[in-house]
Amino acid sequence: MGCIINPEIQSKINGLVISPLKQIEDERGDILHMLRSDSPLFSKFGEVYFSNTNPGVIKAWKRHKKMTQLFALPVGRIRLVVFDDRSNSLTKGQLQEIILGRPDKYYLVCIPPMLWYGFQGISEIPALMVNCSDIPHDPNESEQLPFLNDHIFFDWKQV
Amino acid sequence: MGCIINPEIQSKINGLVISPLKQIEDERGDILHMLRSDSPLFSKFGEVYFSNTNPGVIKAWKRHKKMTQLFALPVGRIRLVVFDDRSNSLTKGQLQEIILGRPDKYYLVCIPPMLWYGFQGISEIPALMVNCSDIPHDPNESEQLPFLNDHIFFDWKQV
Repeated sequence: MGCIINPEIQSKINGLVISPLKQIEDERGDILHMLRSDSPLFSKFGEVYFSNTNPGVIKAWKRHKKMTQLFALPVGRIRLVVFDDRSNSLTKGQLQEIILGRPDKYYLVCIPPMLWYGFQGISEIPALMVNCSDIPHDPNESEQLPFLNDHIFFDWKQV
Repeated sequence: MGCIINPEIQSKINGLVISPLKQIEDERGDILHMLRSDSPLFSKFGEVYFSNTNPGVIKAWKRHKKMTQLFALPVGRIRLVVFDDRSNSLTKGQLQEIILGRPDKYYLVCIPPMLWYGFQGISEIPALMVNCSDIPHDPNESEQLPFLNDHIFFDWKQV
């Protein structure tokens, strides 16, 4: 039995947090932390659900007006891209790409409202993202842009 | 795109709930429900974490004195066994075996305190159990029994 905690990743975007999560190795099956009620990243519970992303698929772009999301990726691997176009943000214009997947990139990612984000499956198996949000899903509080658009310049083809 | 909801499973044990969960099929990757704050099964948020069970491995027996657990199994397949030895329970002596795994056995299972439970990985890949509990993990509020013992008669070898 061992315990893995990956190195800190610096966030380039105000409010975006990338926090190392503990993986407890066990030959019977590993235990993986995600979120406790006493974590500084927890505010309130809205919903927990799972989003699979098949190999190569791009799910982008989306932003929530009210919801704060907490992501963990216990299975597979994705690239997650976050873009800040908030008019009053000190980090306006910043874009950050984060690779997520075990065992070397196992993190809790906190995405506050009004940040654009998208992701792509980059493992041979479907990637399972667990999303724990502070409000339940509501289709009226999110908006989308096509993955190719004139507003966010990111080349999804270039891995 | 389609939506799968499996048939109801009757609980044989007082307080044990086995509730069908929605699977939204999508060629880019399926979306899987687990728990919303407005669900009748949600009381309060304590912790969400993941427990992998490798093929064939038996993790049994355990019971919590205070914690209510909510299980979902988005990856792999397990048999979950629950045993009631609560002295004042109307279903004392009952044992229930539940198979969990997508797409035909995707359920939310609620295990209240003082029920014994154990599970076994029965898929070729590690099974990923997501556990959302009403209090954070505390090693002092749970107790264990070996999977072979004189108190709970269950033959783990017989699948």
